[in-house]
Amino acid sequence: MTRRILLVNPNTTASMTDKIAAAAGAVAGPDTTIVTDTSRDGPASIQGYLDIANSFTGLHAAMRRHPDADAVVVACFDDTGVDALRCATDVPVIGIGEAAFHVAAMIATRFSVVTTLARSVPGIEDNLRRYGLAARCRRVRASEVPVLALEGGDPACTELIRAEIRAAIDEDGAEAIVLGCAGMADLMAMFAEEFGLPVIDGVTAGVALAEGLVRMGAKTTGIGAYAPA
Amino acid sequence: MTRRILLVNPNTTASMTDKIAAAAGAVAGPDTTIVTDTSRDGPASIQGYLDIANSFTGLHAAMRRHPDADAVVVACFDDTGVDALRCATDVPVIGIGEAAFHVAAMIATRFSVVTTLARSVPGIEDNLRRYGLAARCRRVRASEVPVLALEGGDPACTELIRAEIRAAIDEDGAEAIVLGCAGMADLMAMFAEEFGLPVIDGVTAGVALAEGLVRMGAKTTGIGAYAPA
Amino acid sequence: MTRRILLVNPNTTASMTDKIAAAAGAVAGPDTTIVTDTSRDGPASIQGYLDIANSFTGLHAAMRRHPDADAVVVACFDDTGVDALRCATDVPVIGIGEAAFHVAAMIATRFSVVTTLARSVPGIEDNLRRYGLAARCRRVRASEVPVLALEGGDPACTELIRAEIRAAIDEDGAEAIVLGCAGMADLMAMFAEEFGLPVIDGVTAGVALAEGLVRMGAKTTGIGAYAPA
Amino acid sequence: MTRRILLVNPNTTASMTDKIAAAAGAVAGPDTTIVTDTSRDGPASIQGYLDIANSFTGLHAAMRRHPDADAVVVACFDDTGVDALRCATDVPVIGIGEAAFHVAAMIATRFSVVTTLARSVPGIEDNLRRYGLAARCRRVRASEVPVLALEGGDPACTELIRAEIRAAIDEDGAEAIVLGCAGMADLMAMFAEEFGLPVIDGVTAGVALAEGLVRMGAKTTGIGAYAPA
Amino acid sequence: MTRRILLVNPNTTASMTDKIAAAAGAVAGPDTTIVTDTSRDGPASIQGYLDIANSFTGLHAAMRRHPDADAVVVACFDDTGVDALRCATDVPVIGIGEAAFHVAAMIATRFSVVTTLARSVPGIEDNLRRYGLAARCRRVRASEVPVLALEGGDPACTELIRAEIRAAIDEDGAEAIVLGCAGMADLMAMFAEEFGLPVIDGVTAGVALAEGLVRMGAKTTGIGAYAPA
Amino acid sequence: MTRRILLVNPNTTASMTDKIAAAAGAVAGPDTTIVTDTSRDGPASIQGYLDIANSFTGLHAAMRRHPDADAVVVACFDDTGVDALRCATDVPVIGIGEAAFHVAAMIATRFSVVTTLARSVPGIEDNLRRYGLAARCRRVRASEVPVLALEGGDPACTELIRAEIRAAIDEDGAEAIVLGCAGMADLMAMFAEEFGLPVIDGVTAGVALAEGLVRMGAKTTGIGAYAPA
Repeated sequence: MTRRILLVNPNTTASMTDKIAAAAGAVAGPDTTIVTDTSRDGPASIQGYLDIANSFTGLHAAMRRHPDADAVVVACFDDTGVDALRCATDVPVIGIGEAAFHVAAMIATRFSVVTTLARSVPGIEDNLRRYGLAARCRRVRASEVPVLALEGGDPACTELIRAEIRAAIDEDGAEAIVLGCAGMADLMAMFAEEFGLPVIDGVTAGVALAEGLVRMGAKTTGIGAYAPA
Repeated sequence: MTRRILLVNPNTTASMTDKIAAAAGAVAGPDTTIVTDTSRDGPASIQGYLDIANSFTGLHAAMRRHPDADAVVVACFDDTGVDALRCATDVPVIGIGEAAFHVAAMIATRFSVVTTLARSVPGIEDNLRRYGLAARCRRVRASEVPVLALEGGDPACTELIRAEIRAAIDEDGAEAIVLGCAGMADLMAMFAEEFGLPVIDGVTAGVALAEGLVRMGAKTTGIGAYAPA
Repeated sequence: MTRRILLVNPNTTASMTDKIAAAAGAVAGPDTTIVTDTSRDGPASIQGYLDIANSFTGLHAAMRRHPDADAVVVACFDDTGVDALRCATDVPVIGIGEAAFHVAAMIATRFSVVTTLARSVPGIEDNLRRYGLAARCRRVRASEVPVLALEGGDPACTELIRAEIRAAIDEDGAEAIVLGCAGMADLMAMFAEEFGLPVIDGVTAGVALAEGLVRMGAKTTGIGAYAPA
Repeated sequence: MTRRILLVNPNTTASMTDKIAAAAGAVAGPDTTIVTDTSRDGPASIQGYLDIANSFTGLHAAMRRHPDADAVVVACFDDTGVDALRCATDVPVIGIGEAAFHVAAMIATRFSVVTTLARSVPGIEDNLRRYGLAARCRRVRASEVPVLALEGGDPACTELIRAEIRAAIDEDGAEAIVLGCAGMADLMAMFAEEFGLPVIDGVTAGVALAEGLVRMGAKTTGIGAYAPA
Repeated sequence: MTRRILLVNPNTTASMTDKIAAAAGAVAGPDTTIVTDTSRDGPASIQGYLDIANSFTGLHAAMRRHPDADAVVVACFDDTGVDALRCATDVPVIGIGEAAFHVAAMIATRFSVVTTLARSVPGIEDNLRRYGLAARCRRVRASEVPVLALEGGDPACTELIRAEIRAAIDEDGAEAIVLGCAGMADLMAMFAEEFGLPVIDGVTAGVALAEGLVRMGAKTTGIGAYAPA
Repeated sequence: MTRRILLVNPNTTASMTDKIAAAAGAVAGPDTTIVTDTSRDGPASIQGYLDIANSFTGLHAAMRRHPDADAVVVACFDDTGVDALRCATDVPVIGIGEAAFHVAAMIATRFSVVTTLARSVPGIEDNLRRYGLAARCRRVRASEVPVLALEGGDPACTELIRAEIRAAIDEDGAEAIVLGCAGMADLMAMFAEEFGLPVIDGVTAGVALAEGLVRMGAKTTGIGAYAPA
């Protein structure tokens, strides 16, 4: 019996979908099929509350295009629309932000997040608090690299992220680093090697946990806040 | 490439090991080998802080008997010794309590825990607080069924647990139930079916997450609180 | 100099807009004009995360139809879309949920919320926690009266709400009651009189605070999380 | 129908009363009368717990001199005596500290406070925690300008406050600034203009919210912690 | 070398001073002298925020009558004036509320408080939160016995307190009971015996801790929030 | 009637026992006998979770060698094994970490901890959070002086600790310092004198509080989490 994990990019930038598909493929088991899709309606990148709100229609439509998915991973570090999607399906829906935090909490006592713009920091902090993992996070750091700049492969962007990782280790006492953007998925291995500590990409974490949840038969609850409308 | 997940029962009751091995086997992937072992030194069941402290020597020895394990799952809901073991290895070490909480947090907004004795409640509450997941947990409920009584298959025990699950749904507004003892692993499917909501067993969750962590290449950090001595 | 406060009903039920317009008119100052509008695109009522996500497009469009507003009040107790709208304007944007909580916190040490359905409780609790006011709230209670049932004026609905208010006073030790739905705006005075304690309607509170913020010249910040895209 | 808002300076320095009266007059509506009064018994400025305790008798007497007030604003950023006064009246009593925090929370996701002396910082932090708004406050900063030095109009004092505002923006990521002393009321507009972000004075905020509460008919609760003795 | 501990009753009811003197005498060491004094100015009992504020002048005067005290214990469970007194002396000042909480936290994982009137509950809860011990306290329960009624020795009062202790054990899972009023000092031994669990009186705890602090040479800090004016 | 306080060094380094015995002797009352003992089985110093877990057997054995003790003080700042020991006795068991925190909370509003290695920081932070005292602690600072290096009396070690104390005062706004290792007991007086603020050693605090608890007749609860097995 095989399983199908739908990995949705909730922004409309297809090159980012390609990047996260590669990350997902590397972690999926042999009996798991990764299906990727890209939103067709909404912002080109998701940076802040307005983009988050504006991306839902396209994200929801993407999920509906794949009714046979056994789990859904939303490839935006803000966990855009995750709560809402859970009301619309009974398969597990996992945001890559929460996935990264849960993994980090199991392999380190304290981590820091390195994300894109400062404008995204309060939202990530609020998510950490809502998920309850704020006490495990030393600091959410902005590299001031915009999401789409990550697509260009500009070494200056990599350097800005590198500097924040170094600061997280030296100043925050971080024992692990969480990369705070789906567009950083391709940097995980390089930085882990370079800094000698766990570097966690949410896409990778999201696929790994989704596969685990499907394997154990976990379903999104149908009562309470996630009950179908 | 296959992977080996070591599932340790940190108490010395072998019949419980058999039960958790069955739960683990049902969730493991085809390319994953579950290795189980039982502590040879310590209490017959782990109920409260004194048992927790007294079980570490045997648990540590069990882990050392399996140096080729790719991940370790500690099959005690109190997450006995997990922090200490992480200082002694670089593979992921997962407690079944934390695993169950992380899974619950991804499929429901609010859950309740049904455990064995009242004496274990404060420790579980403290773990929830330490992991940051206390706000997601409505209540930790004691069924007053001792751990070893679960081994006998006495219907009266099942009935006590059933009554607490019902109360968790009716009084707490729980959207999912976490079973708070490794010895309840065989009850997960029955209660999920009966009550129509997710019922999460920690052994199952622990194996699922451990497999995911190994697949994504996650390692226990080697710096900070978990640095090797 | 007069001021214009836009009061948006983010669901598409016009009869509810009429009700909240009446509540708003009673509290606005003589030099304040209340402009009401109703979403033209989205759910007929907002109950849970999926409705919240689906209401944003219509809500945003409604705000854009009134570029001369000096402040915006979002008349949904879940504070639907408030963060996102703040990224799209520099006038104050106030949700009726947060308004009610802030007022309650200034006139009582402990309050309880009486809302519509149980499915909305976790979202309101999360808002309280995010706003920091969770410690002041004894309990969020569901009356199990759906939003649209409030429109019919059925005495049985009023009775269900009354029962929860009584329980909040007797069991929770609530010193004030927050009505957790825009559709309850017309019940504020009656229950305050009947129970002899403050009963706070969010629409009324939202308009009162919005007027105050405009009068003091407060603007939504343009830097950080609410910076224009 | 007009309304009367009593603005009490709980220290005995009349020049400070003049300053806050000017701030209050600028925000009050046309149908609102601001009545100011100064404590006749107590410390000349309120800096720390001992001054707070010693100011209550004079503050209470001041409130009793104005039995026709429709609301009371206590013009000390520590919210001196606010809880106690609420037990002695049924009109709203608002501290300028809490008013500023509530306003800040509605126009920014994160703010910093710039106050006078370091000795006042823990008390303000405790208030933030008690009101629940600690998570929204990045940092409480001391300018080390004593309260009474603000009265002299010394440019060096202004410079010290300016430096802390700059640090709050640059180091804390503050999106708005709360001025942590009634004696800074005259600096609000200047700093808002200079730094291009919301700068919130508590006196202004307190009057604005008090007027809103009166307009909506809100009363201090008469049951529970604020019940009359 | 002997030490003198000043035990101040901050209300003006001398019979209560006699009762607490007896409790203090039973716990003091042979080389410790307990000096008791009663406020000469303020309320006859302290129930709620207004009484707290009104009791400070008399309490402060009482402390000044004993400049040779090596430590001060404030015998009101609300810890009336403790922060302010610490600004006025360098010897340790201990409130009986905090003393009881600290002792409870060292001998039990969870306790409940049984106090006098419901109106005092929010203040005690706020103290617990401010001291950080809220997570250890299951519930603050009101017996609805007024402070002065305790002086009469009416068995009905004792019965009301007994009922709350029983409920704390049965419903809250309390492992220890904190008596939430100085006037209950004489009930500690009886209830401990009767219920077979620790029952902690704040006067007793306050004297015990004060003696320990003096013996170890601990002084109230002279910098920061408690710096002398 | 005299009392016997057992002070156990849970590591096997006898020279450290001598040092803490000296600190304890200086604070004990004339009618108190301090009995010291050293673990005979376990690590030479306790630095991190693995050492903590490995020290319990020896610590427990040490306690059992002194059945006549009226209280037990565990002389490791991590409060190693304290919860477990409480299940094995009805006399008070006090960890020197918690003792120091409780004392600090009564003489200052904010303190910082200066401990040995960075690897111990998360555990101390978790203890602070579990005890509820995290909000009172500004920061846990690592001096990077290993426990056993303290035994050598190397001035370079003292200098490293001094630098952190200075930083705690200057950067953290600490009003008191807690020394985060039993091996620093002999430095308390020197640093208090040098820096002019309270410096709290846990051994001293632990003995002072233990004596107080015995004097007031406090016992470890026998129900709930600490019930005998």
